Amino acid sequence: MTTEPLLLTPGPLTTSLRTKQSMLRDWGSWDADFNSITARVRERLLQMVHATGTHECVPLQGSGTFAVEAAVGTLVPRSGGHVLVPQNGAYCQRIARICRVLGRKLTTLDYAENTQVLPADIERALAAEPGITHVALVHCETSTGILNPLPQIAQVVARHGKGLIVDAMSSLGALEIDARTMPFDAVVAASGKCLEGPPGMGFAIVRRAALERCDGNCHSLSMDLYDQWVYMQKTTQWRYTPPTHVVAAFDCAITQYLEEGGRAARYARYASNCGILIEGLAKLGLRSFLPAAIQAPIIVTFFAPDNPHYQFKSFYDAVKAQGYILYPGKLTAVETFRVGCMGQLGERGIAGAVDAVAKVLAAMQAAA
Amino acid sequence: MTTEPLLLTPGPLTTSLRTKQSMLRDWGSWDADFNSITARVRERLLQMVHATGTHECVPLQGSGTFAVEAAVGTLVPRSGGHVLVPQNGAYCQRIARICRVLGRKLTTLDYAENTQVLPADIERALAAEPGITHVALVHCETSTGILNPLPQIAQVVARHGKGLIVDAMSSLGALEIDARTMPFDAVVAASGKCLEGPPGMGFAIVRRAALERCDGNCHSLSMDLYDQWVYMQKTTQWRYTPPTHVVAAFDCAITQYLEEGGRAARYARYASNCGILIEGLAKLGLRSFLPAAIQAPIIVTFFAPDNPHYQFKSFYDAVKAQGYILYPGKLTAVETFRVGCMGQLGERGIAGAVDAVAKVLAAMQAAA
Repeated sequence: MTTEPLLLTPGPLTTSLRTKQSMLRDWGSWDADFNSITARVRERLLQMVHATGTHECVPLQGSGTFAVEAAVGTLVPRSGGHVLVPQNGAYCQRIARICRVLGRKLTTLDYAENTQVLPADIERALAAEPGITHVALVHCETSTGILNPLPQIAQVVARHGKGLIVDAMSSLGALEIDARTMPFDAVVAASGKCLEGPPGMGFAIVRRAALERCDGNCHSLSMDLYDQWVYMQKTTQWRYTPPTHVVAAFDCAITQYLEEGGRAARYARYASNCGILIEGLAKLGLRSFLPAAIQAPIIVTFFAPDNPHYQFKSFYDAVKAQGYILYPGKLTAVETFRVGCMGQLGERGIAGAVDAVAKVLAAMQAAA
Repeated sequence: MTTEPLLLTPGPLTTSLRTKQSMLRDWGSWDADFNSITARVRERLLQMVHATGTHECVPLQGSGTFAVEAAVGTLVPRSGGHVLVPQNGAYCQRIARICRVLGRKLTTLDYAENTQVLPADIERALAAEPGITHVALVHCETSTGILNPLPQIAQVVARHGKGLIVDAMSSLGALEIDARTMPFDAVVAASGKCLEGPPGMGFAIVRRAALERCDGNCHSLSMDLYDQWVYMQKTTQWRYTPPTHVVAAFDCAITQYLEEGGRAARYARYASNCGILIEGLAKLGLRSFLPAAIQAPIIVTFFAPDNPHYQFKSFYDAVKAQGYILYPGKLTAVETFRVGCMGQLGERGIAGAVDAVAKVLAAMQAAA
């Protein structure tokens, strides 16, 4: 291949040429032209989750994990804070690890990786431990692709008067999130996922009433979302040097998102990709790890072919030579690989990837 | 102006078109092609400060401040750690604030902003408080442009057997830093300064023997340089999603840096810019804040014209309309503005900026 391979990964993903071209300009981080970009990004992110007026969008330099840590560190009180983390994947486990490193009291609720978090279990856990102050939920687990029932869980958490922190890394922009009907204290996501920008910044959409109480709570200076918010309100600027090219490109990606038709259109495109992918690989005998009912159309985990000739590294390299970059599995017990449904995949898109997998497995004599 | 303005700021700065064009490609963060870029960046940064073999380069997502906080949080023990921060500017004060937020014991040594940190004072402070474990020094203060005598201070700190953490944000790549003759535990800088990449990642060059002792010390998961290093050694990958476009562009900027002739050439270019700038503005009656002997040729602070018609905002806007973006001053007591000597300023470069300032002050009737 002379052209660059398509990224069928859970992010970074393939962005549009227009998004990339918007990085061909340098911006002064103090300048009004750049600050108006930041303001527009924040405003449009709030609108996406119907949170204008009730919530604040606080952007943060770094990867999505930085923003998740910042949300936990800023919102959960250092003393008296207690987080319930339902766990059915690697990113839930990462939130639990953040709580441990930050010294926030933690209760986990463990599930198998192919099982959804149940609202009734959250209900029981909150009733059993009234000291819990926050629930931290991963909306769509990037490690498997499983969808957790955010609307129902948000209702349970609200009924108990607790704060909900949602890791919406692999959902915001494609799956519905609505602050009016799914009460949350924070929804956290990043530039390089379903909104199809380059990676390099995260953001938290935080309920203003909750954020206002967080002065001095954060364990970190750089990750203090309260401080970042107050400074930004006062100056229109980021507190510390922003990744200017990434911010400008993210803004450009959001414009294209709206032009495409917003969330409904993006969901439809990813759902179509997901359908073609699962159906196409099923014809090759490759089964997906999750039942369709709990599969989010963002990233799909497949069982590796049960064939002695199969080996992930050579499979990966050969598919890459065909122009498609896949992603390794993240399960410990079974061998899997992952395929993303996100990004600007162009005409051949997912169907081309299915063909490439077919060709490669045939050549490797590694059919499922 | 139809073309974009040049950035005469302390970073983000004007990068070359070639650097920006290297962002026109998406990279898979798990892929070997991208990981070889990361490896090359780390290797060349080590070489720049003559630290290959003795130190490790640990990159970090986010701005330079994130990397400074990460170095303090990772290297200074949670219990028993005690940091001496000599303060002669805003970035020294920021390190002190980081120590406070992180709960690390802190002693400051206060100077006026136009006065260099004196090695003899460090000597005295270390003798007076033997419990101090680390000295955190800003090499070149971006807030004024003052240069602190790193070589002499490094010797003092080493003689006392303490660890030195250097914020080299506005110096690395232009001013000499040599691990062989200026012993340090960590030198911290970022992509968007003297190496002329886009902003979005920082890095710390850490003495391996010091880093190896830091398992579990950091206050933050995302900022744990030990964890980032161990993971990178094992997998060749970043722990969490890297800003792929920024990393690739930083690598490209480093290539151009080496092609230009490395540190000596970059220093010479900035020194020439600085000379033209100070001389040119002096002819307009604008005095620089610092005496030449302690001025680093990176960023220059000028006293604002003592003229009732002068007002920074309109001055800034008018100079911007001429194609040059300046930077506000950061001193509380006197009104100043700042001009950066860094970046790809092209033919008209600094001389053009001097002309623009002359024109604008004349039009404003705000001569000094």
